[in-house]
Amino acid sequence: MAKVRVHNFAISLDGFGTGEGLSREAPFGHAGERLHDWLVGTQFFHASDGREGGTVGVDNAFAQQHDPGIGAEIMGAGKFGPPGWQDDPDWKGWWGPNPVFHQPVFVLTHRPRPSIEMEGGTTYHFVDASPQEVIEQAKTAANGLDVRVGGGATIIRDFLAEDLIDYVHVAQVPILLGRGERLWDGLEGLEDRYDVETVASPSSVTHLTFTLKKR
Amino acid sequence: MAKVRVHNFAISLDGFGTGEGLSREAPFGHAGERLHDWLVGTQFFHASDGREGGTVGVDNAFAQQHDPGIGAEIMGAGKFGPPGWQDDPDWKGWWGPNPVFHQPVFVLTHRPRPSIEMEGGTTYHFVDASPQEVIEQAKTAANGLDVRVGGGATIIRDFLAEDLIDYVHVAQVPILLGRGERLWDGLEGLEDRYDVETVASPSSVTHLTFTLKKR
Repeated sequence: MAKVRVHNFAISLDGFGTGEGLSREAPFGHAGERLHDWLVGTQFFHASDGREGGTVGVDNAFAQQHDPGIGAEIMGAGKFGPPGWQDDPDWKGWWGPNPVFHQPVFVLTHRPRPSIEMEGGTTYHFVDASPQEVIEQAKTAANGLDVRVGGGATIIRDFLAEDLIDYVHVAQVPILLGRGERLWDGLEGLEDRYDVETVASPSSVTHLTFTLKKR
Repeated sequence: MAKVRVHNFAISLDGFGTGEGLSREAPFGHAGERLHDWLVGTQFFHASDGREGGTVGVDNAFAQQHDPGIGAEIMGAGKFGPPGWQDDPDWKGWWGPNPVFHQPVFVLTHRPRPSIEMEGGTTYHFVDASPQEVIEQAKTAANGLDVRVGGGATIIRDFLAEDLIDYVHVAQVPILLGRGERLWDGLEGLEDRYDVETVASPSSVTHLTFTLKKR
């Protein structure tokens, strides 16, 4: 059966998935690129830019699981654009005319707009729906493949609270952001419902995986 | 020069050093013993109870650094007893008549009382002082050896905020407590002042060390 998965979601040691002060110039606010240095360095990321090289250790081993077997992505409004993008009819996401997704992407927003078909197979659908509803839509679009929940922290938290995610990979970066959007709030006892594994990388990132227990 | 060190301080994945609902029956509140299972299993801990056996892997390698070279401990009022212990003139700590410390222990409290000399070399001193002041007192008592800051989270956080700690070992346990006392609040950018290292244990605990950078 198709699964719902989270990959490469980076948080700080104090649990923030993004910083404060998000804007078009600072997509992660005061966090800057620090949450994603480990990812940007990997062979997986290099290849996504058409470049050779990159690290091939444990960071890359996790990073490259991002795409295989995925048929659609769900993301929150906060990932699709900077605060206020809903007021800009020309905003089409951060990822340019040929986005990296190459599949249907469901953007959760209380202000839906018509779908946008981009180059390379990505279509953005804007939906005002419950977590369960958007998962059903995304699974249908994924046509038997898995669905990735792309973030941000709020969406992952909400979906986890309802046990709607089968697998989560979190990369914990040893920096303290102090402020921003927390991933773990309201998830007391998550370990009772998920098996947790932990791997430290020489890059100093800690990879944590959560796998929904069979019931 | 004598250093100020923290050892074996356990936090949950969401950063809580203790739970909610602390009492004489529940020293760690709703966290119970879950933050310390990794420690209780070690050879170090077994030996402190006069028992043989225990794990000898990375958890033990960190755990056993708790005592060597230490000449005095500083702890917060919240570690010394349950809420309200200041109203009980007979309260002498959690650790019985012959406490594990065997050295001077400085308890920070706004309601000091006369020092208590226990069996085995432990003397409890109760002081209402600034972090700097109590460190000076403890260093004098330690007589050239290092000083350990024993917790709880509030004390470690306050001391870290002022760069008063040279070395911190934190054991991050992959459970989500959801509520309690957070270690990381107000420490944005700590990584700029401390070198951070990370080691994952097969027990699924992640050991993090912070070493104050030379200036």
